[in-house]
Amino acid sequence: MSAIRHALTIKREDDFAAWYQEVISAADMAEESGVRGCMVIKPWGYGIWERIQRLMDDRIKAAGVQNCYFPIFIPLKNFEREASHVEGFAKEMAVVTHHRLISDGKGGLIPDPEAKLEEPLVVRPTSETIIGDAMARWIRSWRDLPLLTNQWANVVRWEMRTRMFLRTSEFLWQEGHTAHADRTDALAETHRALEMYRACAEDDLAMPVIAGEKPENERFPGAVETWSIEAMMQDGKALQAGTSHYLGTNFAHAAGIQYQDKEGGQQFCHTTSWGVSTRLIGGIIMVHGDDDGLRVPPAIAPHQIVIIPMLREAPEDEALVAYCEELRAMLASQRALDERLRVMLDVKPGKAAAKRWDWVRKGAPLIIEVGSRDMAEGKLALLRRDQLWNADNGKPAFQFLTREDFAAQAASLLEAIQQALFNQARTRRDANITRGVTTMDEVAAHFADNQARPGWLEVQWSKPTGEALEAVTERLKAHKLTIRNVPRDGSPADGLCIFTGAPAVERILVARAY
Amino acid sequence: MSAIRHALTIKREDDFAAWYQEVISAADMAEESGVRGCMVIKPWGYGIWERIQRLMDDRIKAAGVQNCYFPIFIPLKNFEREASHVEGFAKEMAVVTHHRLISDGKGGLIPDPEAKLEEPLVVRPTSETIIGDAMARWIRSWRDLPLLTNQWANVVRWEMRTRMFLRTSEFLWQEGHTAHADRTDALAETHRALEMYRACAEDDLAMPVIAGEKPENERFPGAVETWSIEAMMQDGKALQAGTSHYLGTNFAHAAGIQYQDKEGGQQFCHTTSWGVSTRLIGGIIMVHGDDDGLRVPPAIAPHQIVIIPMLREAPEDEALVAYCEELRAMLASQRALDERLRVMLDVKPGKAAAKRWDWVRKGAPLIIEVGSRDMAEGKLALLRRDQLWNADNGKPAFQFLTREDFAAQAASLLEAIQQALFNQARTRRDANITRGVTTMDEVAAHFADNQARPGWLEVQWSKPTGEALEAVTERLKAHKLTIRNVPRDGSPADGLCIFTGAPAVERILVARAY
Repeated sequence: MSAIRHALTIKREDDFAAWYQEVISAADMAEESGVRGCMVIKPWGYGIWERIQRLMDDRIKAAGVQNCYFPIFIPLKNFEREASHVEGFAKEMAVVTHHRLISDGKGGLIPDPEAKLEEPLVVRPTSETIIGDAMARWIRSWRDLPLLTNQWANVVRWEMRTRMFLRTSEFLWQEGHTAHADRTDALAETHRALEMYRACAEDDLAMPVIAGEKPENERFPGAVETWSIEAMMQDGKALQAGTSHYLGTNFAHAAGIQYQDKEGGQQFCHTTSWGVSTRLIGGIIMVHGDDDGLRVPPAIAPHQIVIIPMLREAPEDEALVAYCEELRAMLASQRALDERLRVMLDVKPGKAAAKRWDWVRKGAPLIIEVGSRDMAEGKLALLRRDQLWNADNGKPAFQFLTREDFAAQAASLLEAIQQALFNQARTRRDANITRGVTTMDEVAAHFADNQARPGWLEVQWSKPTGEALEAVTERLKAHKLTIRNVPRDGSPADGLCIFTGAPAVERILVARAY
Repeated sequence: MSAIRHALTIKREDDFAAWYQEVISAADMAEESGVRGCMVIKPWGYGIWERIQRLMDDRIKAAGVQNCYFPIFIPLKNFEREASHVEGFAKEMAVVTHHRLISDGKGGLIPDPEAKLEEPLVVRPTSETIIGDAMARWIRSWRDLPLLTNQWANVVRWEMRTRMFLRTSEFLWQEGHTAHADRTDALAETHRALEMYRACAEDDLAMPVIAGEKPENERFPGAVETWSIEAMMQDGKALQAGTSHYLGTNFAHAAGIQYQDKEGGQQFCHTTSWGVSTRLIGGIIMVHGDDDGLRVPPAIAPHQIVIIPMLREAPEDEALVAYCEELRAMLASQRALDERLRVMLDVKPGKAAAKRWDWVRKGAPLIIEVGSRDMAEGKLALLRRDQLWNADNGKPAFQFLTREDFAAQAASLLEAIQQALFNQARTRRDANITRGVTTMDEVAAHFADNQARPGWLEVQWSKPTGEALEAVTERLKAHKLTIRNVPRDGSPADGLCIFTGAPAVERILVARAY
């Protein structure tokens, strides 16, 4: 067995944070923009986001939710209305104060003092308050309910410490906002969105998640209930990958969202909001990446199959490209994962081997190489990104097969890779959730002993609130731990609370997190 | 012949500007947001934008252009670099100066004086300068060229007088940005984008346009050449519906976008940019709308066919809905205009007649009504939005036909409506371009005599530049006229310049404009 020479310089086990940055750079997904806290999302990273958008948008529309677009600027007074909401966001917003620049007389530009806004505008950190205003205009009677809206937009939350895709000052997301006649209907929508996120994460992103409710101290500012999906990264940390909030009538009271019920009385609406963002791409990297770069699940790969002809800048190149183009056409008419195959024929100038490694680092699911000898035999060389290496000789595990054989099995190969990536991630996740820990000493020991990949703990608790909960979060914080959520599909409690010793009422997940 | 009672209260011929606002409101497309200069785009308006995006994005990707995402914030120094660019934009930008709010101690919020940015940030009015920075990082050698990027984004240009879709402080658009080895290649891209816009406007939006070059005084700030597509609205005014700019090496010099050529020398790139925006929706309204509301061309209609069962809140409703659902399924499996049909079954509570008029005002191309008697006969009632009225009796021109007959002809009906809307607009446009005017007195007389729908003039000119051109634009301005463009496909000049009397070199379009 020979040593494998991986395509990245940093291994996950050596420095996970540095490995993450190397994947983003080696897969050409994004880069620092030079503007504080903002990134440039490059074609491969943005292409993955477009795929996520398309699949999530289909799910959103199938649920009867309609897309709209609301202003990027929110007047200060909107934030002043909902006290707990502004408390949660006030510290990190970009504030527009002027609407014109003028020359400073020294070749530079300054905000024009004559063009100061009477009321500053905030660049939206989220849109509950401005959409609440619209809902108050749009809703008159019970016939207008439920009102189901969504927008795809950029939002800004000023962050002091940023990390690409995971925490940036500007990010892209969708935010669903809905209004309902009563609590029951609003909670049903909160759970529908949560389940939609679970299905999209698991079926489209091949990313296993645990759906559950956040403890009260982790709720969205102004929410009555906050639910999340939590994914485990390969370093054992948790990533909150999507949230769904039941907002009660808090925002309805603040914005005056009322309706006339069937008996003619005036009622406040119950509202929800739910969102996922470009943060999901950070999750995909940390769940599926390996020491050779990214591995993109076929359902969200901009190109699922990349065909690389081994060009020699010679006359015979023409026939080789034609052979590859025939293959591309054979594949492009087929379907896998409910869509047409996405196939790219890479005829850019450059050596085939260099291009192969570029696509390995980007994580294209299937890479095909064709040389003139392959063509003469009607064959091709296939590399599965999820089975990259031949452990026996430390070389790439090429399979040689006829063009027709490959075309006949390409769709099922892609579906198999989608499933394999999910299974791999789920097996790892399940192996790294520890149950049965009953004391804080055991918790401390667990995280002291498992620095490299501590995983998550599932413990039982008595659901303390207020100051008692604060005391719990402080104790966890000492070990850099947070409560992730109360799993929706968890077993009932049958023991004592790890924090208070009182009878437990439910199980919670405790972990280090991004 | 009875008088027709139209669905809107304002007729185009009575007050075109008020009619425009009524269409937007009656078709439920958008509304004022309460935030200065920003609108809320409602589901029907946003759905049309999603259709335009999808079709334009397909064209963009087919040309090998890759989507990216760049920061919304642009440092001041970027604007200081390119003198003519900042000159063109400096007067109308939203400036972020603080990154935190604090309590004012009186229940309100103010920008935190401790959180003032060292360098203010501008909310992008367009992204040439920030994308130029990225191009300078990405381009090393001739092998990296051409570099073809595009982004879908929101942009902000502070506007004092706004009008929904046509001129708003925030709007949505796509902006293509490309870098090339030389002028020839960059000009070819400028023209490819222009032709893409012409094709999308005419084939997808059914909006006839004239593609041509803008005079130098109408160029984009920093551009060497600016080309546009110009559409004629029903009031005879012009709408600039898309632009494509050849930027020479101006932005490349400002941002340092250089490449090593095949001989090893350093060269500056030639760049282009091109964009269309939500303004197109304003154009669709003013080209296709009528006194009953909007008429949406089938290619961009969110729902092409709306089926309205005449429900009675009675047990027989169930069979009626099932009958309509069968029709919906029959239609949804078919294709027209290269896509699956988009069919909506409207079972919302409410009277069928009220719903019919809602869909008429929204401009759904085909409206189907089915009552229980129709069902018993296996029939339905069809209303073509583009042939709404029976002139003989002043009533809606319903056609009664069997469900199967309709299903068999639905696709071709939609294609016929798409073509009919285009033909109608082109005929009107062509009838309202006046040629052969050779003096400014005739120009003045023409616009004095045709206040209601003055149309465009095609005149010949000697292409004056600098101060001579300024004099020309001043003379036109006295009649509220501007030069729209020099038609790309126009006839050669054969007369004298209408402004200078010198031999003419080309023909220009002169018009009032939005």
